[in-house]
Amino acid sequence: MNQLIELKRVTTKKDKPDLSSLGFGKHFTDHMFVMEYDKEKGWHDPRITPYEPLVLDPAAAVFHYGQAIFEGLKAYRTSDNRVLLFRPSKNIHRLNVSSERMSMPPLDEELVLEAVQQLIDLERDWIPTKEGTSLYIRPFVIATESCLGVKPALQYKFMIILSPVGAYYANQLQPVRIFVEEDYVRAVRGGVGAVKTGGNYAASLQAQLKAEKLGYDQVLWLDGVEKKYVEEVGSMNIFFKIKGEVFTPALNGSILGGITRDSVIEMLRSWNVPVHERRITIQEVYEAYQRGEIEEVFGTGTAAVISPVGELSWNDERMIINNFETGELSMKIYQEMTDIQLGRIPDPYQWTVEV
Amino acid sequence: MNQLIELKRVTTKKDKPDLSSLGFGKHFTDHMFVMEYDKEKGWHDPRITPYEPLVLDPAAAVFHYGQAIFEGLKAYRTSDNRVLLFRPSKNIHRLNVSSERMSMPPLDEELVLEAVQQLIDLERDWIPTKEGTSLYIRPFVIATESCLGVKPALQYKFMIILSPVGAYYANQLQPVRIFVEEDYVRAVRGGVGAVKTGGNYAASLQAQLKAEKLGYDQVLWLDGVEKKYVEEVGSMNIFFKIKGEVFTPALNGSILGGITRDSVIEMLRSWNVPVHERRITIQEVYEAYQRGEIEEVFGTGTAAVISPVGELSWNDERMIINNFETGELSMKIYQEMTDIQLGRIPDPYQWTVEV
Ligand SMILES: Cc1ncc(COP(=O)(O)O)c(C=O)c1O
Ligand SMILES: Cc1ncc(COP(=O)(O)O)c(C=O)c1O
Repeated sequence: MNQLIELKRVTTKKDKPDLSSLGFGKHFTDHMFVMEYDKEKGWHDPRITPYEPLVLDPAAAVFHYGQAIFEGLKAYRTSDNRVLLFRPSKNIHRLNVSSERMSMPPLDEELVLEAVQQLIDLERDWIPTKEGTSLYIRPFVIATESCLGVKPALQYKFMIILSPVGAYYANQLQPVRIFVEEDYVRAVRGGVGAVKTGGNYAASLQAQLKAEKLGYDQVLWLDGVEKKYVEEVGSMNIFFKIKGEVFTPALNGSILGGITRDSVIEMLRSWNVPVHERRITIQEVYEAYQRGEIEEVFGTGTAAVISPVGELSWNDERMIINNFETGELSMKIYQEMTDIQLGRIPDPYQWTVEV
Repeated sequence: MNQLIELKRVTTKKDKPDLSSLGFGKHFTDHMFVMEYDKEKGWHDPRITPYEPLVLDPAAAVFHYGQAIFEGLKAYRTSDNRVLLFRPSKNIHRLNVSSERMSMPPLDEELVLEAVQQLIDLERDWIPTKEGTSLYIRPFVIATESCLGVKPALQYKFMIILSPVGAYYANQLQPVRIFVEEDYVRAVRGGVGAVKTGGNYAASLQAQLKAEKLGYDQVLWLDGVEKKYVEEVGSMNIFFKIKGEVFTPALNGSILGGITRDSVIEMLRSWNVPVHERRITIQEVYEAYQRGEIEEVFGTGTAAVISPVGELSWNDERMIINNFETGELSMKIYQEMTDIQLGRIPDPYQWTVEV
């Protein structure tokens, strides 16, 4: 640990929300982590304080020019009451990849990991116990300098807030219906699609609304240049199982390098399932579908871990995948991954970190 | 006027900043306009209050998913002490174009115009008098709902803040050196490049820093698909005068429809100068340059009105435009436009609105 993290406890704790109606990102714990950055002092005053509102000048850069990045990971409670984080250093490193692209100052990754751990430790009793629930961890950085010039801000705030979240699946994995978007574009090479910055998500909302209106759950994005190559889904990377082999779009600079994606690839390789990271056209997906070769399609991400795709709609073609049922491989990955996250089996990959 | 705008005045006014060191967007006036939106009440509580910090939950959507839009326009003081706005309805309408693309609720454009006028009227003595200075008006909307789900927020805040700004040019128009960016991309068709949302500006910072390191003032963006077509400069649209005719990129969905751009086109047409809005490749600009046919290049935007381009660097080719001097047409447009803005000549276009 490099710097001392100051601690100011709340005097009265909040009531915990009802476990059966947690939802996602609606309830927040008693404390949060904060530190500030300025040119002279660098990152300073790391502290855990009561969860409280931010006070910012109306001219703070984050309101005007979108300099903002974030991460998302989870703390899980095991049945023997230990608390596990899943590859937290990966998220913290990705935060720095995002900060560089967005012209923001780098964070001390060790300090951030320490902050996550201390905060989680303090809020231990906020980690819900019910199967599938967890404590969602949201580290984020915003530009706070009060100045309307378009330039990298000189002042920032880094924070970590925690939110107990419900199970993604009510009981079992639920296949989703995906709309392949041909008009709206999420990101393009040379842009910021490969990092977690707010603008990417704001830009995606119209397409998401359109997909919902058409009766779909989520959007599958195509590349912004040729609208030919499959990129990713909302907040998930995408995988195709075709004739026993697994394919996922290569990290091309416009899609996010998901940590679940990385873990799934490693897991599949350890099982000797061939995995290919390469460009994949939506046309070849469609052709494989027509030949009856597509066995499974699934998304990967921190929220759902694995999200089976039951239907892909592209250009008026509706591809029903695996009879709209969760595939065997999807199920197996989900099981193994959540077993590791919940400490139910040994972790051969050394992914989990105990708090 | 549709709704009553409440007024709460400051008790003590701030000292006015030194007119010689105003800079841009650093000082703010005594009051601001605010109103809130939620699903039930719609936009409500329009009011002018003392300029004061915002208090927001750390989970407010604007910090995480970038739902934020803004506008920029100016109030000018004429030599006979009247106050003029330049086409304010255009900015307010563009704000609604932005809000639609960013899945935000539309504003009542009449109410916003009324708010701008009342606020400016109240802050009249903040409009600086020195030649070239003005009072910059920054309306903006941010998503304030406290929720980490990726979806259009259900609560927003609309604000108008005012900042006295210095003259863009110390004495006369100053040509700029522009770097044509071939790696970074600002926007792509299907994306959000045509609207004023924070993410576009955050995404542009790395390229701006790179251009500055190479000794240039600003970046000229190419289209994100083919990297062939000229788009726009930092916060300006771009015009080329070639053999007596003027060319500017057509509004293709990925560049901002500048209000200065629109005004320059109208002005040129009224002068019978041929103006063409169409796709322009950087290659054809280069070829016209080689044939000695490029007479002037200039940027247009609210900040500088007209910014002559003295040099364009593309692919190791350095094109020196008009001997690095301000062209005749650039000068004439600048003169006419600022004369209208400052009420020095009659306004045949009915662009100005007196407060
Ligand atoms: C755009 C996007 N793609 C993919 C993912 C999946 O990444 P991870 O597996 O790290 O959660 C996320 C969620 O973080 C995301 O926001
Ligand atoms: C990206 C961009 N392009 C062009 C412009 C010029 O627009 P306007 O003439 O309305 O100021 C601006 C400034 O508003 C801008 O931000």
